[in-house]
Parts: sequence; C-alpha cells; structure tokens
Amino acid sequence: MADADRPGSAGLVAARLFHFAQPGHELELDSGERLGPVTLAYETYGTLNADKSNAILVHHALSGDAHAAGIALDDSGPSALESGLDGAGAVPDGPVDHHRLGWWDTMIGPGKAFDTDRYFVISSNVIGGCRGSTGPSSVNLETGVPYGLSFPVVTISDMVRAQAQLLDFLGIERLLCVSGGSMGGMQSLEWAVNHRDRVVSCIPIATCARLSAQGIAFNEVGRRAIISDQNWRNGEYYGNTTPDAGLAIARMIGHITYLSDESMRRKFGRRLRGKEKYGYDFSLDFEVESYLHYKGNRFVERFDANSYLYITKAMDYFDLSDLTSIKSKMLVISFSSDWLFPPARLKALVRTLRRKRKDVTYCDVQSSRGHDAFLLEVGPLTELLSGFLDNVYRR
Amino acid sequence: MADADRPGSAGLVAARLFHFAQPGHELELDSGERLGPVTLAYETYGTLNADKSNAILVHHALSGDAHAAGIALDDSGPSALESGLDGAGAVPDGPVDHHRLGWWDTMIGPGKAFDTDRYFVISSNVIGGCRGSTGPSSVNLETGVPYGLSFPVVTISDMVRAQAQLLDFLGIERLLCVSGGSMGGMQSLEWAVNHRDRVVSCIPIATCARLSAQGIAFNEVGRRAIISDQNWRNGEYYGNTTPDAGLAIARMIGHITYLSDESMRRKFGRRLRGKEKYGYDFSLDFEVESYLHYKGNRFVERFDANSYLYITKAMDYFDLSDLTSIKSKMLVISFSSDWLFPPARLKALVRTLRRKRKDVTYCDVQSSRGHDAFLLEVGPLTELLSGFLDNVYRR
Repeated sequence: MADADRPGSAGLVAARLFHFAQPGHELELDSGERLGPVTLAYETYGTLNADKSNAILVHHALSGDAHAAGIALDDSGPSALESGLDGAGAVPDGPVDHHRLGWWDTMIGPGKAFDTDRYFVISSNVIGGCRGSTGPSSVNLETGVPYGLSFPVVTISDMVRAQAQLLDFLGIERLLCVSGGSMGGMQSLEWAVNHRDRVVSCIPIATCARLSAQGIAFNEVGRRAIISDQNWRNGEYYGNTTPDAGLAIARMIGHITYLSDESMRRKFGRRLRGKEKYGYDFSLDFEVESYLHYKGNRFVERFDANSYLYITKAMDYFDLSDLTSIKSKMLVISFSSDWLFPPARLKALVRTLRRKRKDVTYCDVQSSRGHDAFLLEVGPLTELLSGFLDNVYRR
Repeated sequence: MADADRPGSAGLVAARLFHFAQPGHELELDSGERLGPVTLAYETYGTLNADKSNAILVHHALSGDAHAAGIALDDSGPSALESGLDGAGAVPDGPVDHHRLGWWDTMIGPGKAFDTDRYFVISSNVIGGCRGSTGPSSVNLETGVPYGLSFPVVTISDMVRAQAQLLDFLGIERLLCVSGGSMGGMQSLEWAVNHRDRVVSCIPIATCARLSAQGIAFNEVGRRAIISDQNWRNGEYYGNTTPDAGLAIARMIGHITYLSDESMRRKFGRRLRGKEKYGYDFSLDFEVESYLHYKGNRFVERFDANSYLYITKAMDYFDLSDLTSIKSKMLVISFSSDWLFPPARLKALVRTLRRKRKDVTYCDVQSSRGHDAFLLEVGPLTELLSGFLDNVYRR
C-alpha cells in the first residue's frame, strides 16, 4: 500500500460501470445491428474543473482496459506488466504486487504528462472487450447465456460512439484532448474525425488512419490460431475448457510485433534458458522462447479469446479515408523502430493533414524499443505531451 | 511438354536417390546421436567436366527441395509457385502445370546465372526434410514405423555433412561454388567454414551466420501452432489425420515474414476479396487474408509437420561464431526490404569477414520484395552471380 503515497501516483482507484442503451435506446452499430443494454467500465483520475474544460480521454490498445493509472483497489485488475502491450523483458521471479499499476501509470498522475493536478483524465474499456465492458463473454439478457459469436461485430467507430455516451453521462461536452497508442490512437483519430466538435486536441501515438495489409495479416493469423483450437467450439466455450493454446499463440505473434529486431537482440540475443547447451529436443532452448511462452500463458488468464477475435476485426476494419473534417490541434508521434506502425506511414498521414492545412505537430521519437515504445519511452513522451497540453489548456 | 524446349530450361529432370550411412557407418550428428541408413534425394543439371572443376552446389530454403531447376518428370514434385518461399501474389485461377518448374529455375539453366552450359549444378534435399531425403516421416527400419519424434534433432552442420558424403559419392572433391538463399545460405556458409578445403567460392544470399532472436521467435510460434494441433499427437500422426491446421498457421506466419510491408501494400493493400463491403463476421474480408489461407492450405498438401519442427530447430541452432577459417572467395547479397535477414546484419557479417582479411564482395540489392527477393530479383542476381562465377571459373 506504500505505493499509494509515492509522489506522482494517481492513487487508489476503482473501476466504475456506466449502463446505457436500454431497450428502445440500443446502440446503433456500423454493421446495421443494434446492441443493448451496454455497460462500459471506466476510471477517472484528477478533478473535473468548474467549466468542464480540463477533461482528457485516453484510449487503450488491443489488450488493455479501463485501468490506465494508479493502483487498482481490487486485485483482479491487470498489472502494468500485463495490461497493455509491454516491453518488460524479464519474467518476474518474485511475487507480483496485487495492487497493480495501470497500463499508462507512468504517464498519468500528479506532475506527470497527463497531470492530474490540472487535468481530469478518463479511461474506459472498449465494447467488444472482456474487462468490464459489454463484449462476447457478457451474458445476453435475451438468452441468459454469453453472447459468443452472436455478439455483433463492432468497429472502432462503434467503440467511440459508446464512449461519447459516457461523456454525455459525465456531463462533459468537449474534451481538452484525446490520446492513445496503437489501437488507442485509432480511437483518438476516430474522435477527431467523427466527433470533431467535441475535441480540442488529439495525440495519436504509434498508430495509423487505416490498418496495413501486414497488420491485417498478423491479426488474421492470430484469429486463425484461436479458431483452430479444438476448445474454441465456434465461440461457445464459456463454462467449459477455454481455447488457451490458440489465444496464447495469437498473443505470442503479437508480442513479436511489439518488439523490434534490435530490442529482441538486446533483451534476449541467443541466450539459452536454464541450460548451457542445446537440448536437441523440442523443449525450450532460448530465453526469447521462454519469454514468449510466459507472455502467452499469462495472457490467457485475463483475456477472452472471442474478445481477441472481435477487437482485432475492429482494427482490420479501421479506415479513415477522409481526414478533412478534423478541427482539433494535432500532435502525431511515431517511434523510429516501430515496424508495426512504421514512421513512414505516420509521416504520410502528417503530410496529408498538412496539405489539408490542419494544425499538426509531428515527432518521430528515436527509440530501439519498437512498437512497445509508446508505453516505455516515458521521458521523451512526457516532454512532448506536457508542453503541447499546457499550450492547448492555456488558450 | 513444350516448356522443355524453351530457351534456358534445364529440361526434364528426375530426382535421384543416394543411400548411405549403412549399419556400422552411421552419420554422426552434432547431438551425439547416430543416424542411418540415410537417403538423400538430389538432382543435377549440366555436365561435370573432365577435371571436375565446374561443380556448383545449391542449397534450398526451409520448405524447398531437391527440385531446383527444370521440369520435374513426375507430377508429384513441387512447383515454382509452391516450392521455395515465393512472392507470386496471385492465387492461380486456372489449372497448374503438372510438369512443375524448380524453385530456382529462373537462375539455373543454359545461359542463366548458374549456366548449365558451363557448370554442373547439384541440388539435394536436406536430412530432416520430407521431400525424398530421410526425415521424421521416414520409416525407421528398426521399428518398421515412421520415426516421428524419435528422429534425432539435426543441425545445419549435420545437413551439410550428409551432402559432403553425396559429393564423395559423385567423386567431386572441390566445389567451384556453394550458394543458396535463407536457410540455403546458412548451409553455404557452413560449407565455407567447416568444409573450407572443398569450397572455391561461396554466395550466401538473404541469410545470416547466426539466427536472430526475432527469427527464433517466429520459428517457435510456428512450432507451437503445430504442437498445439490436436492431430499432432506428439508427432505420431502418420497414417492418421495430420495436423494441417497447425502447419497452415506456421506457414501463414512464415509468409508474412517473407514479404515486406511495402510489397504487401502493393500486392494487396486493403482490397476486399469477392465482396464490396465488410462482412461483419469472421469469414475472410481482405485479399491478404485469402492469400495467406491459400498458401497455408496448399503447403500442408506437400509438407510434413514434423519436418517443419526439425528444420526450424536446425535454423535456430545455427550459430557460426568463428568465421576465421573461411578460405573461399565470398559474394554476400542482401535485399534492402528483407526484414527477416536485414541488410544491417549482413553488413555486420561482411565487416567481420573484412577484418579477418577475407576476399569478400558485398551487395545490398535495392528491392521492395522483402525476403522473397532471393527468388524474385532475377535480373540483379543474374548480373551479380554471372560475373562473379565467371571470374572464379576462369582462375
């Protein structure tokens, strides 16, 4: 509990639930289907000011959740190690603190980039997810059993439309800023384009305006691994053995794409794990294999395989072909060694925005840490974000 | 059959079998185990000259085989489309020619880079494979059933030691050149280091002297997909349902790494497959998904899942830490967009060789085609190889 007192912590936090889309008011989805009732799990940090002008919405990545900062009151929450993408190479040897830190705790808190002494920060779990918001593992009230594949396919636009209702509920008309990395950045861009009047500024990080063929390819292989798992049973595995092997493989593929060739070389190289020479069998020989297995096996403890299918599909479908309507001040950030969302793509996005005379600042942060850098390069990110937000807030 | 007459074809070829390592003369493996009897499937193109000074040994990649050039006499052979890695994006609509072309047919034949009017080219399938050479799907004569996982783990060094016996059998003491791409290049480097007196020149292409952590990681995820398949049954699936789903996933992962982000964008982009809008379900939406599924499903028709385990393990174990003993003239080639074997790594290898005062020429070929470029960039490769080989042969 001592962590709660340390300087810069957002403190002890508990997720809250927002229920909406009751019968007759269902959420209309891009697919044409309707979803309701809907629950969003969310957390807030800091205090909303009198004129409600200091609210910032942060968006999590593929495997993240509402617990972005501070220390979770209950011990069922995710950890900083396990919540978002992460690049913490070492497999912890000791016990993990049950009061876990949020996935962007390094960035959100008193005196941090998203300074909770000044700003009111909101974070919510996406629909389709499995961390408190309505998704395929939720019980369908009409049938009394979990949705499974009868859950409608949702898009990034749908996720954001649900968040907009949360903002209405909180009485917040305009957001000082929206920001997130990876799929979080997709949501931020979606806000800037399709909810333009509610967004003063936008900070998309290590992301894209439309997923690449390579990104779709990696997602599809992950989905195939889940769907091929004998325990998946067309998505109806709830209460039964879960498709852990398939989900672990999907996560392992993901982790390779979150690191760079260089960061893998530095972190693991060709070091053997617990042996001095090759085993000449198919047990694990190398540290990097052990790391991937650990990551895969931990992930299945806290994530639903069907949610993995739905969320990756939402990423695949993301395609903001028209950026002309953006009104917000933009700060676009890439990382030099991120090959999943390469700087060249982000630069092209920035050129498009500039041709359309948008107010855009761009920085390619030099980092060897690959895509994970958006969670790890706290120093450069804090410097960039603090100045940008201060500037936006003072106006 | 008309193809056999076209200029530059190595013509109709049939694989031959070399049997060795009979009882008492088993092949000694790096693991300490002994393997025998052993069969190597091989092909030859061109004619060995009187002083046996014009022999070139080419090495196939992970999924390749002995059929490197010309048109296979029987129709059970691999195709140019399916044999090695490949970047032929389109899924063929019409019937595929049964008389299939070798995986490096563009490079081997009269007037081609490996000019069969001048040189005698040899190609053999590796041990551990499943295309005619002894591997886990071969029957163990002691038990009367296929080896499965009782097949010993082999290394690149073991594969090359078996090839050396084939060369002895053919009466060839020295090779004018050894060459190959990807895992083929590993074998070529292994020849140059550990059979240095038998190699005049060496052309490793799109390869490495030790596999990177990222390379090991991708291999391990592929293996995990196979091992997690319920039909794998600890490798004892012969005569039963084969672990096709797992092997297809492994192949799909492989194919992503063989292409570049850029080549995937050009080849597929975000084009939908057979539909005009998103399906909002988990059927295939995008061309790139369809391509990967096609590649995965075709691969299981011709490749053994256990061989995939053994061959990837051999790649993982490859680590030529000492290059000082190399005597041959070297031509090292990388491709600018190859992120599986990045130019930076090949450059580091070349720097090491130069520091040791080796005779080494290096070229980074500009190409957007990723790792597959070693099969596709025929023009630049032909120019580089023809001159180099001519120079070596004239001396």
